[in-house]
Amino acid sequence: MFKVPVHQVAGHQAIGGKLGPLVDDDGRFYKPLQSGERGSTEKAFYTSFSSNTSIPEDIRRFFPVFHGTQVLEASDGSGPCPHLVLQDIVSGHLSPSIMDIKMGANTWPPQSPEDYIARCLEKDRETTSINLGFRIEGFHIYRSKESDLWKPEKQFIKSFSAQDVRLVLKKFVSSNASPDLDLNPDCAFASIVYGGSTGILAQLRELKAWFEVQTIYRFYSCSVLMMHGKGGSGAAVKLVDFAHVVDGEGVIDHNFLGGLCSLIEFISKATQDEYPNKTCLKDSENNRSSSDNCTCE
Amino acid sequence: MFKVPVHQVAGHQAIGGKLGPLVDDDGRFYKPLQSGERGSTEKAFYTSFSSNTSIPEDIRRFFPVFHGTQVLEASDGSGPCPHLVLQDIVSGHLSPSIMDIKMGANTWPPQSPEDYIARCLEKDRETTSINLGFRIEGFHIYRSKESDLWKPEKQFIKSFSAQDVRLVLKKFVSSNASPDLDLNPDCAFASIVYGGSTGILAQLRELKAWFEVQTIYRFYSCSVLMMHGKGGSGAAVKLVDFAHVVDGEGVIDHNFLGGLCSLIEFISKATQDEYPNKTCLKDSENNRSSSDNCTCE
Repeated sequence: MFKVPVHQVAGHQAIGGKLGPLVDDDGRFYKPLQSGERGSTEKAFYTSFSSNTSIPEDIRRFFPVFHGTQVLEASDGSGPCPHLVLQDIVSGHLSPSIMDIKMGANTWPPQSPEDYIARCLEKDRETTSINLGFRIEGFHIYRSKESDLWKPEKQFIKSFSAQDVRLVLKKFVSSNASPDLDLNPDCAFASIVYGGSTGILAQLRELKAWFEVQTIYRFYSCSVLMMHGKGGSGAAVKLVDFAHVVDGEGVIDHNFLGGLCSLIEFISKATQDEYPNKTCLKDSENNRSSSDNCTCE
Repeated sequence: MFKVPVHQVAGHQAIGGKLGPLVDDDGRFYKPLQSGERGSTEKAFYTSFSSNTSIPEDIRRFFPVFHGTQVLEASDGSGPCPHLVLQDIVSGHLSPSIMDIKMGANTWPPQSPEDYIARCLEKDRETTSINLGFRIEGFHIYRSKESDLWKPEKQFIKSFSAQDVRLVLKKFVSSNASPDLDLNPDCAFASIVYGGSTGILAQLRELKAWFEVQTIYRFYSCSVLMMHGKGGSGAAVKLVDFAHVVDGEGVIDHNFLGGLCSLIEFISKATQDEYPNKTCLKDSENNRSSSDNCTCE
């Protein structure tokens, strides 16, 4: 009944007898409750969020549906262990390309222990977090043939510069994505995945509008998952990983929001120069039709 | 000819023979060039900004006009010293109430020396910077009588909590502002200073729209000055202090922008509960007329 998910791009993975999440055939994703405060924080977040009536429905769709917790045999064979039962957000997507982007310049909640802050700060400075307000944590990209998957090593991704991030955001929507830096990404799916009224940019802008006013939660170290199926179909944005969410206490999550604005600007810019006359991403926000003489800079 | 400015609320002040800025009667503000990199960075910023044709005129008005540099006798009597010659942004305002707000959760440019980062980070965590994305650096508020000024000590301001910031943002637009925490601010000028199509919120939202796309500069440790004259007249926003501005390198200033969004939300919220039936600040963005049954939450 339970299987190891094939489409996980970051986080602990249930490979080689290690503890990791499981999925079933009914579209559910079983995430082992992390030990200590992380597990209790994530469970508390899902419980609070799923019952909070002030969350707009349009925003709720960006979060995995929560089905409670369930004790089941851990993937590492260590015995029964409590799992969060969540919607399997990639279920139903055939060959989905996925990118996991950890949001915020600062990944540490302000009240964390000193040694945790120091470790996070070091990672935030070594990666693009401090510079860009986000960092790519993992991704995999399907190419033309269904079996042809490019999934780079963690270490490769960790060393990304801002320029690498720009390039990978293009490769993510290309039919010729590859580790070969000399091969120019064709951005074949850029307009369908990123652009348009239902594309990823439109979805990120909806999220942004909510983050400009919501003061309920602060999402430290949370990820934006971007995904799309073959040919750029079904582009979707989801938020995952809530082990470091804290109470907003009446203050907006300026850390997440700043990174989100940066990601939006990055995706717009990174793809604009590739197809300036195909679709004007800036215009797509207002659902204006694309035209050959569109003048977005 | 040169005088010590009476309306300075933060920064080095030319009092008791110390080195600080001077003003003249022609509306110019002479800021001593800081030693080392800070001075050269600030001069380089003003030089770059004043000649950059890609800055929209609507945005340029938020910055002091730059008139070059001039060597003049330092305010501390230490001899001739180079000064930045700037527009005196409070010149022409009678009895201006002023607030200096240092922007960004992180006040340190990423490439700074380790000891500088450590010192900044400590201050950012001790004050409201990390929590709110901004901190109040200084302010003074004129009350009913022209001579009646409330200008608190630096130490008092440094210890502000988020709740104190909320309260002071109300006092800033009240006719009965005082250090007495039990005296409720009357928010007499809130709608005229913060609201409306030319008020401070509208101006901050204009700035925000620019920060969402500009990738030329990153304004670390820069301040937003908010000011208004007697009775709430002439509400204005200016940016000052550019000693830590760095090249944007194609990335938006998500650190400043996040803090700006937080400040906008804070001012909206802090004043809404005081006069929900007078003016609806959220609606004022769209220049809709206020009404007694306005329903902004």
